[in-house]
Amino acid sequence: MDFSKTKNDLSQLIGDKKVIQKNDGTMDEALFNSYGTDRTKVYPPNYQVLVFPESTEDVAAIVSYAYKNDIAVVPSGGRTGYAGGAVAKNGEIVISLSKMDKVVDFDPFLGTLHVQAGMITKNLHKEAEERGFYFPVDFAATGSSHIGGNIATNAGGVRVVHYGLIRDWVLGLTVVNGKGETYKFNGEILKNNTGYDLKHLFIGSEGTLGIITEAVVKLTKPPKDIRVIFLAVPEYKNILEIFRETHNFDLPLLAFEFLTDYCLDKVKEHLGVPDPFQAPSKYYVLMEFEVSGESDEEKLYSILESITEKEFVTDGSIAQNSRQNETFWKYREGISESLSLAYTVHKNDISLPLRNMEAFLDEMTSLLTKKYQGFHIALFGHIGDGNLHLNIVKPKDLSDAEFFAQCKQVDPEMFTLIQKFKGSISAEHGIGLLKKDYLNFSRSESEINTMRAIKLAFDPKGILNPGKVL
Amino acid sequence: MDFSKTKNDLSQLIGDKKVIQKNDGTMDEALFNSYGTDRTKVYPPNYQVLVFPESTEDVAAIVSYAYKNDIAVVPSGGRTGYAGGAVAKNGEIVISLSKMDKVVDFDPFLGTLHVQAGMITKNLHKEAEERGFYFPVDFAATGSSHIGGNIATNAGGVRVVHYGLIRDWVLGLTVVNGKGETYKFNGEILKNNTGYDLKHLFIGSEGTLGIITEAVVKLTKPPKDIRVIFLAVPEYKNILEIFRETHNFDLPLLAFEFLTDYCLDKVKEHLGVPDPFQAPSKYYVLMEFEVSGESDEEKLYSILESITEKEFVTDGSIAQNSRQNETFWKYREGISESLSLAYTVHKNDISLPLRNMEAFLDEMTSLLTKKYQGFHIALFGHIGDGNLHLNIVKPKDLSDAEFFAQCKQVDPEMFTLIQKFKGSISAEHGIGLLKKDYLNFSRSESEINTMRAIKLAFDPKGILNPGKVL
Repeated sequence: MDFSKTKNDLSQLIGDKKVIQKNDGTMDEALFNSYGTDRTKVYPPNYQVLVFPESTEDVAAIVSYAYKNDIAVVPSGGRTGYAGGAVAKNGEIVISLSKMDKVVDFDPFLGTLHVQAGMITKNLHKEAEERGFYFPVDFAATGSSHIGGNIATNAGGVRVVHYGLIRDWVLGLTVVNGKGETYKFNGEILKNNTGYDLKHLFIGSEGTLGIITEAVVKLTKPPKDIRVIFLAVPEYKNILEIFRETHNFDLPLLAFEFLTDYCLDKVKEHLGVPDPFQAPSKYYVLMEFEVSGESDEEKLYSILESITEKEFVTDGSIAQNSRQNETFWKYREGISESLSLAYTVHKNDISLPLRNMEAFLDEMTSLLTKKYQGFHIALFGHIGDGNLHLNIVKPKDLSDAEFFAQCKQVDPEMFTLIQKFKGSISAEHGIGLLKKDYLNFSRSESEINTMRAIKLAFDPKGILNPGKVL
Repeated sequence: MDFSKTKNDLSQLIGDKKVIQKNDGTMDEALFNSYGTDRTKVYPPNYQVLVFPESTEDVAAIVSYAYKNDIAVVPSGGRTGYAGGAVAKNGEIVISLSKMDKVVDFDPFLGTLHVQAGMITKNLHKEAEERGFYFPVDFAATGSSHIGGNIATNAGGVRVVHYGLIRDWVLGLTVVNGKGETYKFNGEILKNNTGYDLKHLFIGSEGTLGIITEAVVKLTKPPKDIRVIFLAVPEYKNILEIFRETHNFDLPLLAFEFLTDYCLDKVKEHLGVPDPFQAPSKYYVLMEFEVSGESDEEKLYSILESITEKEFVTDGSIAQNSRQNETFWKYREGISESLSLAYTVHKNDISLPLRNMEAFLDEMTSLLTKKYQGFHIALFGHIGDGNLHLNIVKPKDLSDAEFFAQCKQVDPEMFTLIQKFKGSISAEHGIGLLKKDYLNFSRSESEINTMRAIKLAFDPKGILNPGKVL
């Protein structure tokens, strides 16, 4: 293909400052390549033309051009994904939303913020805060991720147990489909029962049905004060007992996370932090509550008392201030980094019905210890949501190739187990390239056929993020 | 068509007790007809075969049969709709979900209830309550409406301002599509990022994409105590000022409703209740708050104090107990009945961005008073959601036919105004038969084309609730 022609044509359409060709002297090659990949690092990017639209109209012009000329496109956000959803490996045009990072509008009655899709999530938090509001979708990558990417992958994070997934916070979307047509779904009104809700199709569609260019997100009131409880828990079943127990107390539970002893050890090693407990335990639970006033402080202590009395925990403490909140959170949020910097890991991000979790964990542990002899398994995650992050750690003496080959063999057996216990093979990370071959473990044949028909309706030439999801 | 054959074939498939033919001696004709219509009363039902499936398998068998034999079907729930969505007027098979009213499952960890779609909404409230939970979707018709119908029309109601629409409370759905294939969407897990979210397409699709046979709904904690404030408000702009003011107080606002002096008069006339205020006012606002404990009671008084000081209201009172809460609510909930029993009315149910509401009301009032000389206009609704119920009252000396003909002429002019102010021609009631010709006022051409393509993917022969929505 003649990429110089593509570059020239696009420059004519949207302006030459917004179009870059690989090695045209305007951008370092490594940086250029980084726009065509994500955090999976499994799929090397391979593409020639990168564009930086500044408006929905720019995006519509690019996709219309691509549609007429049968060229595929890949939308590129903050590239923090773990499923290869943002990888351009076949000469696609990469459409970076990075320059589309402005506030479009704010509605104080609805409590909504209308932004361009390339706004960095952390900046959206700030914009909300400046207006006296709070945007509750939060996770480790918000300093880099874009709100558009968050929506395209239906992001979750640490406070889903209280606030839900990002799907619950999207009131309106502006989207360009695979023909270059622009849809504007709601945004100004709360209620609109006029036919099918197409908006929700785009949330979690990983850029395969349309390119999200603008979003209207709902905001809420900031939590008054936050307090973290960190617990040492002897047995898995106690985690569920603690979770149910918290329902009896009249305090908003913002987060309910867990980790194993192995994870705690790795964080201690990597961050050089002390053990927060006197004696080791097999599991640890981190709970975050919203509190306001003294009576809530008392409730906090009565929760701790109640679960200690019932012998659900062997040790536990309540953070005394916001600095200590952060210290406790480090033991949970430092896990991914501690593992991936020191080891090679194979990640899975799965979800199970909580009531099936114990039986699943038993069978999974016996499967994995049989199949992965000598491998370490790091288990942690948003247990209140039934969401496990499962990292298999490569032994030092095994080659990467051998390790990943082995993982690839075991994955389908684990997915079979997940299916048996009515879980999902991807809780938060999505399908992308990485789990495409396994979609049938979580979706039925007729669902997959219907998804294909829907893809065709929005993107008849299949030029939007091809090869992902379906 | 040979309806006796249809009856016999279906009896063979699902059992003869579940199949009734018109005038076969098992059901009174008026009752039979009532299963093929709703509250619009504009479209006379005309059909011959009524079935009462008891399971998803029954529904799948019926639709498979209909698909093979090119017969259309109409799903029939509690038939409380106002848009003709449940009308069978062309010899369709009517599928009543009335016998599918059982609890299937309860998950105490997720706080979800799995029920069959024919469960009456009020009964679902009770089932939730018995388990220590609360299902917050509530409105006047819950004693008759089915949860499946609520979902198929994305029901709202009086507490949307706090709890959202029913869409926000559906975790899982079981649906039979137009080929008789069954989908099971989630239900057991909170997180499942594996491809397109097809579930949301069915919510609000009015039975045109599939028949909802089971639903898993989320539950929440019951509100602790509820307190109603009723206010007399001199000008429209004060309503918005009060709404914004309530955001500054740290009390959950469960409902924010309004009515005009004309509505209050009609309720007083019809129910024989006294005027709740000393002096008449042009508008009235009803606010409902969740309270717990004395400090919240104080907050309630400080809200009233603050809006009185700012002269947003001329009069107001706080209900002192739950009986008084109910008394206050009667002035709002009695409006529809007071109007429709004593008068002929033409209903519209519209939504506008709150910030455009005042300008819209000005233009609408001048349009309607010009077009409807001598007509009364009753305005009330969920103003906190930007949702107006607009009832035009027929003068006594005009015939029904003349009245409705006039309304039909004015509606498109009003819809043009709604479009101008970025509102929706149907906030809660849906499209059905009644607003089908006006869909383009709220959805773009490319959206409508996409909806058609999606309809084709789920219902290739167009046998599901034909003629509705699209």
